[in-house]
Order: sequence, then structure tokens, then C-alpha cells
Amino acid sequence: MKNIAREKVITVLSGGMDSSLTAYKIREMGFEPIPLHFSYGQRTANRELKAFNEIADSLQVAKRYHLELPFFSQIGVGITSLIDNSLEINEAGVDHSKIPNSYVPFRNGIMLAIAGAVAEKENAVGIAIGVVEEDSSGYPDCREDFISTFEKSLNLGTKSGNIKIFRPLVNLQKSQIVLEAIKLKVPLNLTWSCYQREDYACGVCDSCRLRLNGFKIAGEIDQIKYIK
Amino acid sequence: MKNIAREKVITVLSGGMDSSLTAYKIREMGFEPIPLHFSYGQRTANRELKAFNEIADSLQVAKRYHLELPFFSQIGVGITSLIDNSLEINEAGVDHSKIPNSYVPFRNGIMLAIAGAVAEKENAVGIAIGVVEEDSSGYPDCREDFISTFEKSLNLGTKSGNIKIFRPLVNLQKSQIVLEAIKLKVPLNLTWSCYQREDYACGVCDSCRLRLNGFKIAGEIDQIKYIK
Repeated sequence: MKNIAREKVITVLSGGMDSSLTAYKIREMGFEPIPLHFSYGQRTANRELKAFNEIADSLQVAKRYHLELPFFSQIGVGITSLIDNSLEINEAGVDHSKIPNSYVPFRNGIMLAIAGAVAEKENAVGIAIGVVEEDSSGYPDCREDFISTFEKSLNLGTKSGNIKIFRPLVNLQKSQIVLEAIKLKVPLNLTWSCYQREDYACGVCDSCRLRLNGFKIAGEIDQIKYIK
Repeated sequence: MKNIAREKVITVLSGGMDSSLTAYKIREMGFEPIPLHFSYGQRTANRELKAFNEIADSLQVAKRYHLELPFFSQIGVGITSLIDNSLEINEAGVDHSKIPNSYVPFRNGIMLAIAGAVAEKENAVGIAIGVVEEDSSGYPDCREDFISTFEKSLNLGTKSGNIKIFRPLVNLQKSQIVLEAIKLKVPLNLTWSCYQREDYACGVCDSCRLRLNGFKIAGEIDQIKYIK
């Protein structure tokens, strides 16, 4: 049953495990999540879009946004393996001592800025993003201090001036994310995390490794199909 | 003569008077400006692009970026007269007591975030934007406190972590901008400021009024053609 009076939160939703749990948590907190998805030339854009739409359907949202960011192809060439197919995705294991070549320059900054503009349009009270600081690939734009400072600048630079940035996963471990998602009945079998394949998950890119490790520590079975 | 060793500054350049002077000032400071232009569905996109290219040519830049932001059409409909042609551009005069309907939600936040990503790609030391706080249309994302806070978040969220945001016009009056531009030999006749026309400037939108008033106070003649 829809609650007409719920306040809106624009929720960045890639269709992965973290952003899907974030959207479910926003609903659990009593807000109306408006999922926002970006196609930016990433290798698995089609598979992510399918996951986004299935998760948005499962949430029975009244409205969703799918925005194309074609300019990322112009920025990403030569520097990020997520966009430039001539660069290799790391399969050797997560190295927490450095920023991997899957880093897309200031991606979360750009996505949060656009989400802020959508929040202005929708008169939303907030935006939400599924960043994870500790148990992650080490991207600088996933850190709490980045998000909290960005929140200040967003509110200085918008008409509303009162947009909260929800980042409910920022201090969680991947295993906690798995357990919380199961508790909230997030259909994890519909989510997609792999950086490089769209049919079966590769199991060896950083994103697959972090996901699988989370399931392992949680003592749960990941229902999506892996190639190895 | 090109100075090979110059450090790069990604310079947001709409092709208007303020951003053109900003690019010239960046060059004057000894940096290599890399002009960055956005087409976001604004009414005068073609005219602005022409002005951008002519100003970039006049600076003899080695590289320039023109990025398309088609998603603004999805965000701007119904809320901003700069994108939605069914909304009227204000012609009644600048009202400093309110934010006008030409405000595009968090436009500078989005542009600065993308400029930050380009700076990462280009190993630039900074980005530059021609915001004017006092003598302006009253957009929240043109204020010094917004820019300085955004600069902090940009540096927390990027690999470089050391990107300066230059905003050399933020505390200037329009008349000072006209005089400085003349001093630095900015070809003001090639710039375009009008919000609504591409052939002759309308002379009555906020942007034309601010520009014309700046020339008037400076005691100079604007060489571009006005319809009235």
C-alpha cells in the first residue's frame, strides 16, 4: 500500500548489492526511494540496467530515473578499465594499498551532483548512495569525509539548501551487508556486481571477490551464477 | 610561443563574458587553460558553442573539451526557463530578492564535478570557473562559500587530492569585468551572453541586462548586436 505522504529520497541504484540494500533501507526508514541509474559507458551497462529495473520493480517504486552520461567515454579512455576495454580489469585480488585502475575519476562526485539536481526537481528531502568505506576497493570518493563535505557544498549550492545525503552502508563490512540484505528481503539474486561480464559473474574481479568474500564470512550462499 | 612546462587548468568556458575573461586570466597567471564547454539543452546551445570555439581559438589552446549533457533535459523540464521553452525567460529586470526561473538545478556543482574528473584525466593542477557572486542573478551555486566547500570535497574525493578551484571573478562587479577584459584584450565581440536568442542579443533577459549595465557603468560600448 502506498503511503502518499512519504518524503522522497533520490537513491543512486547501480543494481549491485550495496545500492540495492541502500534503496531497501531508505524504504525501511519510511521514505519513498526514487531510484536513479546511470549508464556511463561501463562494460556491463546493459546487465546493470536490467538489475536496476528489476530491483526498482521489486520496490514497487512510483518513479525512476535512468540517465545517460555519454561524456564519461571521453574522460575515461586511457585511464579506467571500467570504461576502456583496452585496459585490463584486475583479477589478481584486492590490493588495499592502492587505488585500482577500475577507479572512474570522481564518479561518485558527479553522480551525487546530478542526484542533487534531481532532488531539487523532485522536492526530495535527500539523496542516498551505497558507498562502503572500509571493506571496499579503496576509491577516494567512497569515504565518509568526502560524503559529509560534499553534503555541505550541495546545500550551499542549491535552492533547497536542505538535502541530506544518506549513506547507510558507509561503515559496514560486506558480510554485514549480506546479512542486512537478507533480513530486509532484498532479492540479491537479481543484483549484479561483476565489473566485466554480463552473462555469468567472473568471480575474480575486485567487485566479485569482495561480494563472494562477504557471502563467505556471512555463511550464506550467493545465488547468482559464476563462471568459476 | 608555447611554454611546454605550463601547468594545466581545466577552464569551464560557456563563451560568455565572465568565463572568457576567466580563461584569459588563467593564461595571464601562467597556466595552460584547457577550455571545457557543456551543451545541456540550453536554448542558445549552438550560439554558445560558436562563441566557445572562437574564444578557445583566440587563446590558441592545444586542447579543448566539448561535452554533451543530455540528461539535463530530463531534469530541467518544468523547472528552468533556460531549458524548457514553455517557461518564459524573465524580461522585466533583475530581481535580487529571489532566485529566477533561469536557475538550472545545481548546474555549477555538476559542471565542477565533471571538470574535476577531467582534471584527474589531464593531471591538471586546477579547474577554473567564472562565477560572480555579488553582481549576478542570485544563483546559489555562484557563491564563494559554495565554491570553497566544493573544493574541499573535490580534493577528498579524487586520486590527486590537490586540485585548486580558481574563481578569479567571484568578487568583481560586471563593470570591473568589462574593464579587466578590455585590459587583457579578451575579444568581447566574440562572446555571447543572451539567454534566449542566437542571432541578435535580446537586451532584456537578466543576462543581457547585467552585461549591458556593466558596459554602461564602465563607460564602454558593447560591440555585439542587440535587437532592442
